[in-house]
Amino acid sequence: MPVTTPTRSSVRTATRTRLFTPGPVEIPTRILRALSQVPPHHRTEVFRATFKRVTEALRELHRTQGEVFMIAASGTGAMEAAVVNLMRPGEKALAIVGGKFGERWASLLAAFGLPRETLPVEWGKGVDPAEVARLLDADPAITTVFTTHSETSTGTLYDIEGFARETRSRGRRLVVDAITGLGVHPLLQDDWGVDVVVCGSQKGLMVPPGLATVSLAPWAAEAIEGERLPRFYFDLRKLRKSMPQGETPWTPAVSLILALEEALAMIHEEGLDEVHRRHRRLTLALHAGARHAGYRVFSSNPAHSVTGLIPPEGVDASAVIKRLREVHGMVVAGGQDHLKGKILRVGHMGGYDLHDMVAVTSALEECAGAFGHPARGAGTAAREGWESA
Amino acid sequence: MPVTTPTRSSVRTATRTRLFTPGPVEIPTRILRALSQVPPHHRTEVFRATFKRVTEALRELHRTQGEVFMIAASGTGAMEAAVVNLMRPGEKALAIVGGKFGERWASLLAAFGLPRETLPVEWGKGVDPAEVARLLDADPAITTVFTTHSETSTGTLYDIEGFARETRSRGRRLVVDAITGLGVHPLLQDDWGVDVVVCGSQKGLMVPPGLATVSLAPWAAEAIEGERLPRFYFDLRKLRKSMPQGETPWTPAVSLILALEEALAMIHEEGLDEVHRRHRRLTLALHAGARHAGYRVFSSNPAHSVTGLIPPEGVDASAVIKRLREVHGMVVAGGQDHLKGKILRVGHMGGYDLHDMVAVTSALEECAGAFGHPARGAGTAAREGWESA
Repeated sequence: MPVTTPTRSSVRTATRTRLFTPGPVEIPTRILRALSQVPPHHRTEVFRATFKRVTEALRELHRTQGEVFMIAASGTGAMEAAVVNLMRPGEKALAIVGGKFGERWASLLAAFGLPRETLPVEWGKGVDPAEVARLLDADPAITTVFTTHSETSTGTLYDIEGFARETRSRGRRLVVDAITGLGVHPLLQDDWGVDVVVCGSQKGLMVPPGLATVSLAPWAAEAIEGERLPRFYFDLRKLRKSMPQGETPWTPAVSLILALEEALAMIHEEGLDEVHRRHRRLTLALHAGARHAGYRVFSSNPAHSVTGLIPPEGVDASAVIKRLREVHGMVVAGGQDHLKGKILRVGHMGGYDLHDMVAVTSALEECAGAFGHPARGAGTAAREGWESA
Repeated sequence: MPVTTPTRSSVRTATRTRLFTPGPVEIPTRILRALSQVPPHHRTEVFRATFKRVTEALRELHRTQGEVFMIAASGTGAMEAAVVNLMRPGEKALAIVGGKFGERWASLLAAFGLPRETLPVEWGKGVDPAEVARLLDADPAITTVFTTHSETSTGTLYDIEGFARETRSRGRRLVVDAITGLGVHPLLQDDWGVDVVVCGSQKGLMVPPGLATVSLAPWAAEAIEGERLPRFYFDLRKLRKSMPQGETPWTPAVSLILALEEALAMIHEEGLDEVHRRHRRLTLALHAGARHAGYRVFSSNPAHSVTGLIPPEGVDASAVIKRLREVHGMVVAGGQDHLKGKILRVGHMGGYDLHDMVAVTSALEECAGAFGHPARGAGTAAREGWESA
């Protein structure tokens, strides 16, 4: 019977709510201000120029010479755009499924009636690219591999560079959901050989949700032409046609694009390598502090976007989540499906710094104590984790 | 040869840009402030409560006892949602096409390979519901009629109540694009018998673009169940499942929903009937002022959302649009396709008041004078038009 009743009183420690969720993440004030400016009309030179600048900055972020399309939608909309623009009716796909977001690829392929294989992966474990290679060799009908960069449901990183090596050498396509990967981990689309990357605004990009992107490697430019699944709103050929004029076929999410411009400026000012390094440090800090407080890291191949934590022996994860919220004003996520009550998920992508990790690990320590597992010094351990990188 | 060179100098008259576009429209400051607040996470009680309140307010706005679904997308996304959720592969549709947005229905039906009839309507003219009835009687295979409430490309209102009478009495479905109609003209979904209404956030609802809605009349609840066109991101069954919990299957456009809550509060405070009355007055004011300045109203059945204006004899509409922007800081839209250079389109849906109409008609008067058609007193005429209602 897991422990769910705290042994100490609940004196509220926070004046405000802090999000440590696997997206949407805390929006930096600079970005909130960009969001609240009077937006220009989208069929004006001032917006066209913004649109072109943001598109160019996204290409740099994706490390691609190809095209990056912005769509007014959640990340799932961009995933659907990848499927309907690349796949012909009846064309076979492979989905790598090691969590909820890998499952989403499989569900999408099913919804569009596509023949498919899945590579099931134990939740929280990595995938050997050789396994992907084996499946591709066994079934030459598979044209396209759909995978996740950072699996948000478990906090696990997949070896995109390794997958791309196997797909490129076999003339297959690789489509990557980098919704919680981009701006967190390096993703060198062209150098690695990734055909398509999809992303959403509300994760590493620090923008409210509602804006999604699809990037297409230069060698894959033709991949969206010709007969494909039925497509209209997500038809990338229409976006391609209007993009050179700084326009979109449908009304763009103007305010979110202004916010994204500010976010990309922040990333540029810090330097993308430094942003990646900071996320690595954040992750090491969180791991060190949380371990010190008696938690274990769930994933054997942890991502730098979100960390799945197993509470101390016998403590119910949902009770920790509840106490974090009620006493500490901190919002984290629970586990999904069979991990419900077993893990909590702490997001740390975007504008977070060491002090956020000190705060959250200190609160985790307090919760562990309240449920019978006292510890001291998690904040210091977090700082040492940060310094170790 | 139309006149494009002004006869007087261009002393700039504006300190700021004013949007009179057919959407996105000027965002009231109250809504910009709502947009810039620190957004809550969407899987929290505070957001769930907001989501439920906004959904309920939307049902009131739609005058329906049915469901209203919010989607992170442009209005076109909601149009696609209507098509893929209602139509079976091979099912036949009728599209009423009297402008760019009627054409969009036809293009959507074509993209999804549906058999279809179109009812072509001269741009700027209304449609007799008897004509719709005739087509339905002639072709029993047509199950669903797709139409526009206010055709944004021409500023023309269609008789939705009349169409619904014909579709309901024949057991056919009626789907209405009310993207520039809702919050401008009355639309009594249940009383009139409209099966589906789609809308977007950036028109009468005064919110930045990126949020769209689909409302389903109570008797049409079953219409989205069973085999339909392939659907995933836009699958309304998924939205239906999570809505009672105040949730969405994909990350919602949180900030835009907060902005919409503020917009709906503003509409509620003014009173929906009064909002409709104000839009009627705005339209009469604009018509009176613009006519006084030598312009003609393009549509024979004008909507209260956007007005198509034909400039004085021999004056090129594009030159007026350019001068409005450069001298007066006012952004209006041009005509589309065969109306390019022939008309300008002035938007007046959302938070506009008499004084905005005085300003824009006065600027239109100045432009008419600059191109050889002097006039005086357009602002007064606009005020008198407002008072006449």
